[in-house]
Amino acid sequence: MQEHPTRRRSWPSLPLLQWGRDYRRQTLLSDGLAALIVTLMLIPQSLAYAMLAGLPPEVGLYASVAPLLLYAVFGTSRVLAVGPVAVISLMTAAAIGEHAVAGTPQYWAVAITLAFLSGLMLLAMGLLRLGFLANFLSHPVISGFISASALLIAASQLKALMGVQAEGHNLVDLMLSLLSRLEQVHLPTLAIGATTVAFLFWVRSGLKPLLQRLGMRPRAADMVAKTGPVAAIVVTTLLTWALDWQALGVKVVGAVPQGLPPFTLPLWDLGLWQQLLVPALLISVVGFVESVSVGQTLAARRRQRIEPDQELVALGSSNLSAAFTGGFPVTGGFSRSVVNFDAGAQTPAAGVFTAIGITLATLFLTPALYFLPQATLAATIVVAVLSLVDFGILRKTWNFARSDFVAVVATLAATLTVGVETGLVVGVAVSLALHLFRSSRPHMAEVGLVAGTEHFRNVQRHDVLVSPRVLSLRVDESLYFANSRSLEDRINDAVALRPALQHVVLLCSAINDIDASALESLEAIDQRLRDAGLRLHLSEVKGPVMDRLKNTAFLHGLSGRVFLTHYQAVHELSPELA
Amino acid sequence: MQEHPTRRRSWPSLPLLQWGRDYRRQTLLSDGLAALIVTLMLIPQSLAYAMLAGLPPEVGLYASVAPLLLYAVFGTSRVLAVGPVAVISLMTAAAIGEHAVAGTPQYWAVAITLAFLSGLMLLAMGLLRLGFLANFLSHPVISGFISASALLIAASQLKALMGVQAEGHNLVDLMLSLLSRLEQVHLPTLAIGATTVAFLFWVRSGLKPLLQRLGMRPRAADMVAKTGPVAAIVVTTLLTWALDWQALGVKVVGAVPQGLPPFTLPLWDLGLWQQLLVPALLISVVGFVESVSVGQTLAARRRQRIEPDQELVALGSSNLSAAFTGGFPVTGGFSRSVVNFDAGAQTPAAGVFTAIGITLATLFLTPALYFLPQATLAATIVVAVLSLVDFGILRKTWNFARSDFVAVVATLAATLTVGVETGLVVGVAVSLALHLFRSSRPHMAEVGLVAGTEHFRNVQRHDVLVSPRVLSLRVDESLYFANSRSLEDRINDAVALRPALQHVVLLCSAINDIDASALESLEAIDQRLRDAGLRLHLSEVKGPVMDRLKNTAFLHGLSGRVFLTHYQAVHELSPELA
Repeated sequence: MQEHPTRRRSWPSLPLLQWGRDYRRQTLLSDGLAALIVTLMLIPQSLAYAMLAGLPPEVGLYASVAPLLLYAVFGTSRVLAVGPVAVISLMTAAAIGEHAVAGTPQYWAVAITLAFLSGLMLLAMGLLRLGFLANFLSHPVISGFISASALLIAASQLKALMGVQAEGHNLVDLMLSLLSRLEQVHLPTLAIGATTVAFLFWVRSGLKPLLQRLGMRPRAADMVAKTGPVAAIVVTTLLTWALDWQALGVKVVGAVPQGLPPFTLPLWDLGLWQQLLVPALLISVVGFVESVSVGQTLAARRRQRIEPDQELVALGSSNLSAAFTGGFPVTGGFSRSVVNFDAGAQTPAAGVFTAIGITLATLFLTPALYFLPQATLAATIVVAVLSLVDFGILRKTWNFARSDFVAVVATLAATLTVGVETGLVVGVAVSLALHLFRSSRPHMAEVGLVAGTEHFRNVQRHDVLVSPRVLSLRVDESLYFANSRSLEDRINDAVALRPALQHVVLLCSAINDIDASALESLEAIDQRLRDAGLRLHLSEVKGPVMDRLKNTAFLHGLSGRVFLTHYQAVHELSPELA
Repeated sequence: MQEHPTRRRSWPSLPLLQWGRDYRRQTLLSDGLAALIVTLMLIPQSLAYAMLAGLPPEVGLYASVAPLLLYAVFGTSRVLAVGPVAVISLMTAAAIGEHAVAGTPQYWAVAITLAFLSGLMLLAMGLLRLGFLANFLSHPVISGFISASALLIAASQLKALMGVQAEGHNLVDLMLSLLSRLEQVHLPTLAIGATTVAFLFWVRSGLKPLLQRLGMRPRAADMVAKTGPVAAIVVTTLLTWALDWQALGVKVVGAVPQGLPPFTLPLWDLGLWQQLLVPALLISVVGFVESVSVGQTLAARRRQRIEPDQELVALGSSNLSAAFTGGFPVTGGFSRSVVNFDAGAQTPAAGVFTAIGITLATLFLTPALYFLPQATLAATIVVAVLSLVDFGILRKTWNFARSDFVAVVATLAATLTVGVETGLVVGVAVSLALHLFRSSRPHMAEVGLVAGTEHFRNVQRHDVLVSPRVLSLRVDESLYFANSRSLEDRINDAVALRPALQHVVLLCSAINDIDASALESLEAIDQRLRDAGLRLHLSEVKGPVMDRLKNTAFLHGLSGRVFLTHYQAVHELSPELA
């Protein structure tokens, strides 16, 4: 076992003490500017993701304050921005949907409880150093899950874009529900929604090049393009107010309470906790994986590093703080963190300033949001998440490794047809099962001597010398319980088919490890060979494997010998070849 | 992937056609003699295991007829004897106990249904070639499970030995139940039981040497010792009849119906089937593993071989036949197969003759069993199963590999305290989890150049040359999703801690395989290194891995180069060393 690479500093730690000590005026300016830009971007995003989670819009703002502060204290990334994100909001909606009706106080209370449980789990995983668990989510599974979730999210926003009601936590239900209500489409809402979607796509693809052609520097043009959603919100809100579109039946955000995030407590209901355990665990793992990926990518660009187990502690604290301030599950988001990074944030102080900005918005800006059309928010969500859809992974994995392809397809199919939680569980189960299946059938090759050398090669690929009395078998994998029986089968077959056989020599150079099952298999092989009048030999056994075998009676009881090199073995057992 | 070794003959096959064609008179004599000895041993064993399963004694006889015939047609082992075995009977009792009361017709009907479902599953697994699934039961888990089950079986027989009632499917419940009824112990029953246990232990350890000292040949002495249970049964039955021990309150087997095995059908109750699915699956897998282990061990002694997938078909047919002839789940048993082998059985015809012998017993012998004390049967079970208990596995795995030790302890503890089904599931889950955990932390070593050579060794173990500008990292494991992030972490750490670093070279000679997650990790590492102004190189990439990488854009986009040997890489990147 290798030493864990993060055990260098004292732990758990307070990174705040490190960056806070060296804080300079220049850093303050950079952080302040970044915070301003991120705040502008976060206000519509927070409202939209709260809506996606089935919660009142102000809850999105609440969830963007305290978590940023806590992350600034405990987090190891300098630029990660913590708050509501699309996939976690969708998972939250799916998890709460079974326990409460969207829009009710009970629904909000369950969301708070979910954030609380998720926070506890993340904290516990961090303190127990279980960050490695996230490694069992393979890249293809994550990719398939994100694409399928993004499609689900976009589909779930179609109802707001079209001004109809629709239900469902998977694509089939959602689309059937929408299709059955096609005749109820509210045309003014659809017009606002479709125009906003078109505008936002144009901002993404057309505005930045235009600004650059007009002489703006690339980075500034990029920043301006990022404020597209703010422009869309300002314009559609003003138009709705000025032209009284509400009278046409266009649904608006309405009255959003003013004031600081409230102090809230989770529901102390053990039955509910039990039912939320699995969703909370899945939300925690997905949130952690997303956050760590973003954090690592950004940290590496400045040759900084993040510590996964400390990140668990930071995300756990952030979610607990969300639960106590009326929020819902949060994590480090991709788009907000990239904007923060690009805008020049140097330290987590940028997060603190952003939190102050959002607090000011909750105090003073909410009345201005009254006339914001829900279709505009839906449009910002649709455009944001569609950029996450990437079916290229299908072609890529098909060309690269079929087992990965199967894992992606299983994840996609289960997420779209059943839902996010099932999709994730199916993806992990399928990828683990395929890995175990592959490792249970190790590559083994009968080898023969290359004439005139001391090298051995696969008899099926090369023209080599073999003796009918000696079987040389190379095992290309560490031996453990799931594959040791293959070795028994292979040798049993060989012995049954070759009446002249007298010796079996295992070439062990690629065996890095061996467990008790493999040892018993070797003993069984030796015993059976001995019963049949044959002898078992080993060659080129690695040091650590030899150390293990020396602790046992196996080597003493072995019918044959252990040779230092395979050539020595063949030289001695079939001298006519060598 | 290696070609499956069993695809040589046509499949599924009828081994009967092979051995039946060459059948000779001499073989007939050998098989007939073996059948006689096995029949004598099977009669008490069948009665006892039926009792262990909570079924009427004649059901054990029924389950020993048709399965032997079907196995003779489909089985690939020449000497395996199929019928009720101890562990499967215990698992049957545990599975049915939740759905019916022992001794009722409903209980028997559920047992028949369980045999039917188990037969269907084994058949399906065979036709789908899923025999490899049994490999996921590691030797330590099987060993722990068998020892714990044997203890459970012995404990469950204490009530019959002591003449009291007791309940429970785990050791804790059983012992508590027995202790609370200690004052009800029936002394005459205890006297019969204890004497029989003592006698049977003496037969095992003392009789064979005695017979040999009296001039008997070792094999004959062994055979005589194997009939110990028959002697105990004859003597205690005669004594109970002659001295009217039944009047003292000694429980006897009583009236056993005479006649051929009945034609029966499973219950067609989908709800019950659903509830029996998991128990039937576990019984199938355990039965298959036990049967194949015994079959392989015996086949190898005569340089024969068995085909696991065909064995599944044979065991499936056997269980289906048990379901249609009033039996319960069966498999190839250890003790009966060894006796068959030692008695000289040459072909499955011995099984056919044994089936005929047991049929004659069901037709004519059952009245003679009326006065057989239940305590005698319990004594034969206790002595038989206690030989299966082997706590040596604890010391062995502790010395050899701690992860195996943990798996054994978990299996033992869960089986004894919760029950057989939970024990087995916990054992498999723990061993898989430990394997995945170990493989998720691959061994990696920073290597340096051994002065004056072209060899590279671990810098922590050897005095080697390294450059502050070049990091040489050897990865000792195939890369897949669960361990690829370790590589990212390791390189991130190294880069963050070494400001002078310019090149990272991965020495890939031990990487046998790579999946899409590992490829993405390599791409991410390359991207991050490039962002930080460093370059990533590879050296000594194996052929199959190189083939995979050539299908991707990775090699074209790589910031560094691919070197044929690691020495070439270091020679070029830090010429001051080489």
